[in-house]
Amino acid sequence: MKVVTKITELKQFVQQAKKEQKSIGLVPTMGYLHDGHLTLARTAKANNDVVIMSIFVNPTQFGPNEDFESYPRDLPRDTELAQSAGVDLIFAPSVEEMYPADSGIKLLAGRQATILCGASRPGHFDGVVQVVAKLFHLAEPTRAYFGQKDAQQVAIIETMVRDFNFPLEITTIPIVREEDGLAKSSRNVYLTEQERAEAPAIYVALNLAKAHFLQTKNAGEAIALAEKHIAENTAGRLDYLQLLSYPDLATITARTEKFLLATAVYIGNTRLIDNLIFSLEGE
Amino acid sequence: MKVVTKITELKQFVQQAKKEQKSIGLVPTMGYLHDGHLTLARTAKANNDVVIMSIFVNPTQFGPNEDFESYPRDLPRDTELAQSAGVDLIFAPSVEEMYPADSGIKLLAGRQATILCGASRPGHFDGVVQVVAKLFHLAEPTRAYFGQKDAQQVAIIETMVRDFNFPLEITTIPIVREEDGLAKSSRNVYLTEQERAEAPAIYVALNLAKAHFLQTKNAGEAIALAEKHIAENTAGRLDYLQLLSYPDLATITARTEKFLLATAVYIGNTRLIDNLIFSLEGE
Repeated sequence: MKVVTKITELKQFVQQAKKEQKSIGLVPTMGYLHDGHLTLARTAKANNDVVIMSIFVNPTQFGPNEDFESYPRDLPRDTELAQSAGVDLIFAPSVEEMYPADSGIKLLAGRQATILCGASRPGHFDGVVQVVAKLFHLAEPTRAYFGQKDAQQVAIIETMVRDFNFPLEITTIPIVREEDGLAKSSRNVYLTEQERAEAPAIYVALNLAKAHFLQTKNAGEAIALAEKHIAENTAGRLDYLQLLSYPDLATITARTEKFLLATAVYIGNTRLIDNLIFSLEGE
Repeated sequence: MKVVTKITELKQFVQQAKKEQKSIGLVPTMGYLHDGHLTLARTAKANNDVVIMSIFVNPTQFGPNEDFESYPRDLPRDTELAQSAGVDLIFAPSVEEMYPADSGIKLLAGRQATILCGASRPGHFDGVVQVVAKLFHLAEPTRAYFGQKDAQQVAIIETMVRDFNFPLEITTIPIVREEDGLAKSSRNVYLTEQERAEAPAIYVALNLAKAHFLQTKNAGEAIALAEKHIAENTAGRLDYLQLLSYPDLATITARTEKFLLATAVYIGNTRLIDNLIFSLEGE
């Protein structure tokens, strides 16, 4: 496995792979890898000739009061883990390498970015689509891999790929969870012991709401049930808990086929997200 | 030569070319081809294995009071001309094929789009970068060809390619002119006989200003000279006439190396543009 930091090195690898008619799987990450990322990498490896993983904590998707500086980073550990998952090339550029000039041209994530996580993180998804578009152009993947954990991100990226005709496929991988149900996240390391013990209540709450909604079709009641469970079982502060259509992220109607039940909860100072995607048949 | 209207047909052609390791030249046009376009196509053919020409009058780059409906169209004639210039595939999609859904995600052209033609055509360059990004993703060109006539457009597209790392080269071709100096344009057909006789004064005016500026370094005087020539020799109304740095399209300074002298003039109801790009050595 190679680790490169320069765009020219990445492009050399990509051009060689293209020349050899190899399919390329891209796994974009912000590093500090956990099982979720490694599942993405292993899936990419199973379905492509070569796998490129980008490791880049992208400043343009962090707000001024967010954790860009303190976001956990550990490239030596990531390198070992990525190699074990079959990654062929790690692209770990500096901020200067990715953003040498202040661009006058902007990609804006639009309506789907104004709700859920976007409501409390203005500009976040603009930063996401900016860096993802750049990575798509740099790695020229056949397929790109994203975790369902960031369901809103996946919905927006799928829309971008469709509307701008990016020549690649998006593959989504189910949420990887701890044994007690907590969704794996690089941010879980921030949790105190007490917070870590409370955090699985989020997943329990989502499942309660899903079951109630499937039985009653009453979205309001279902959401209230989940909110109550979180309030009673954690010291957390709810950011949002919503039931929307997926992937368009609009208000549900009688014709909605796929549902996204998504939440973000502050457990102490740590913001955790989780979601379920399901149809009326429950799957 | 093939003429296709569907994205799936275009992609089939592109995938076959990629499989055969052929380089692809892309010539994006709005059709109603003239010598300028054919020079682009011939240059593309000389430097690439295959040439794709898109013919698409893009509605998103026209303002509500502009000439989208009346913009000249003649696909049978364009097909013949493109074939004679060595084009291998014409992609002539419908508006519905290019914009099946209203995208929530937007590409915005930024600061460089607020001046020159952009000042009087709000949203024009947003539409340009939108359609060009889509065409780049659809045709996956090795090289894309644009005329210097739309100097601001080229400057913005070059910035987009740089900032978003599109995996291709932009090649610019000098302005093709009529014998009397008028820049070739699809819109020249709108001119009455009298207007057509006056129109070459635009190019004369630009050359007067360039010569004066190179001699005196006095931009204000140079511009006034050109404006006076246009006022005295046409019934036209000046939209703008500016001297800027190129390609960043900023105010010139003592350190500016490359200059863009650009103008837009309404001759009757027809808006004509022209420009010169030069260094202090005059080239």
